[in-house]
Amino acid sequence: MMPTESAPHRREIPDKLVIHALAGLPEISAGAPLAELLCEAVARSGMKFEAGDVLVVAQKVVSKAEGCLVELRSVEPTPFARSVAQTLKKDPQHVEVILRESKRIVRMDAGLIVVETRHGFVCANAGVDTSNVPAGWVSLLPRDPDASARRLQEEITRRSGAAIAVIVSDTFGRPWREGLTNVAIGVAGFEPAIDYRGQADGHGNLLAATVIAAADELAAAAELVMGKVSRRPAAIIRHFLWEPAPGKATDLIRTREKDLFR
Amino acid sequence: MMPTESAPHRREIPDKLVIHALAGLPEISAGAPLAELLCEAVARSGMKFEAGDVLVVAQKVVSKAEGCLVELRSVEPTPFARSVAQTLKKDPQHVEVILRESKRIVRMDAGLIVVETRHGFVCANAGVDTSNVPAGWVSLLPRDPDASARRLQEEITRRSGAAIAVIVSDTFGRPWREGLTNVAIGVAGFEPAIDYRGQADGHGNLLAATVIAAADELAAAAELVMGKVSRRPAAIIRHFLWEPAPGKATDLIRTREKDLFR
Repeated sequence: MMPTESAPHRREIPDKLVIHALAGLPEISAGAPLAELLCEAVARSGMKFEAGDVLVVAQKVVSKAEGCLVELRSVEPTPFARSVAQTLKKDPQHVEVILRESKRIVRMDAGLIVVETRHGFVCANAGVDTSNVPAGWVSLLPRDPDASARRLQEEITRRSGAAIAVIVSDTFGRPWREGLTNVAIGVAGFEPAIDYRGQADGHGNLLAATVIAAADELAAAAELVMGKVSRRPAAIIRHFLWEPAPGKATDLIRTREKDLFR
Repeated sequence: MMPTESAPHRREIPDKLVIHALAGLPEISAGAPLAELLCEAVARSGMKFEAGDVLVVAQKVVSKAEGCLVELRSVEPTPFARSVAQTLKKDPQHVEVILRESKRIVRMDAGLIVVETRHGFVCANAGVDTSNVPAGWVSLLPRDPDASARRLQEEITRRSGAAIAVIVSDTFGRPWREGLTNVAIGVAGFEPAIDYRGQADGHGNLLAATVIAAADELAAAAELVMGKVSRRPAAIIRHFLWEPAPGKATDLIRTREKDLFR
């Protein structure tokens, strides 16, 4: 995924980051002009987009704007979905939607279903979830979160005149550690990883293996001001020093061949 | 790990976070008074610790101050370590140190050794690494990173008069996603997880499963200003609204019974 042969490029690391929560978005419905609404929310909060800002937007509002919601009673579960639902003690319609969003099941145990989504993300329930959506509905991940991020980036940059980067974030679990963290499922404008390989540390040792998933760290940082029940579906991270590049969040997906835990 | 029966407690989420890199620490040797040196570095940078600050300190300087460095030529590898080293194409002395720090091997493949450390963390190489240490030496994780965090918290709070929280962070890989992120391996002063279970989202749905690993998100956020080659082994996160509590980073370790990926 990342360059290995080129001369190491020393990334500038900021002395300081500032992360602002963005509140005041209306409830988002299918077809809502999300970029415009985000610009309006920024203006109402007394801020302006500045060149270099990283805008982090929660997957949920992106999915809503893109119409990626499914009403469960419209879903006819297959016999397999019914059987899985019984094993996992879940709703059969909900399981049917999860299976439709999945390319492959990674683990199914202890009431959990961890899958590889159509995009290639490995996560619980294929990212299908019921929080912050109307009762009886579930939200899906955007069809192409990198494209969603790119559209937001282009339109907000056009409207605001400020060259920004965009991350679409979602809340994923992980093996070995309790608790969820936000990660980047869509990226536009910069490389999601910082590659330190070939650079020298303070002792002159060349770093052999260090590639930092900066986009995931930015998504995690933004979560701290967005929260889960505060109706703050976005955050602006200021002073992170990214360079314009055509990065994608799918670059952060480890290929199946290199993954010891699929 | 987290309360389930108590009435849901609505956590206050900050509108804004500010993260300051802390540079200017001298090279740390065994026995160095790390709390004092951190206070001096803060003063030299023109800042002061404020009540509510979260100080994030890189594992490497904590390990150095605690003398958790091993000179490889002093290590006699066992036949098993030699055999593993040959399979993984690693240095036998280095592998021997990894095995001594390990309770259990989780995966050994593709040149990687993922273990459960003596503390219970699941990570590559038992956290034994060669970056930012003298050539021919490796650093180990602190013996009890929660205790390390607690000692720093107590002494810095005493010296500065500001009630701070402390995280000791390290850089871990994870399955399924490329790139490393910083996580909390030591915590003092607050609960490392934010439990949203039982709280209502914007649609009145009760959140069923959402526990956020806030300490890991704070560690990740701090990494963005610390970098890997900038000699910035600490960061101060300002405005995160924690409540004093006896949390530990080991609370974030998923037990083997609940983990589908060991």
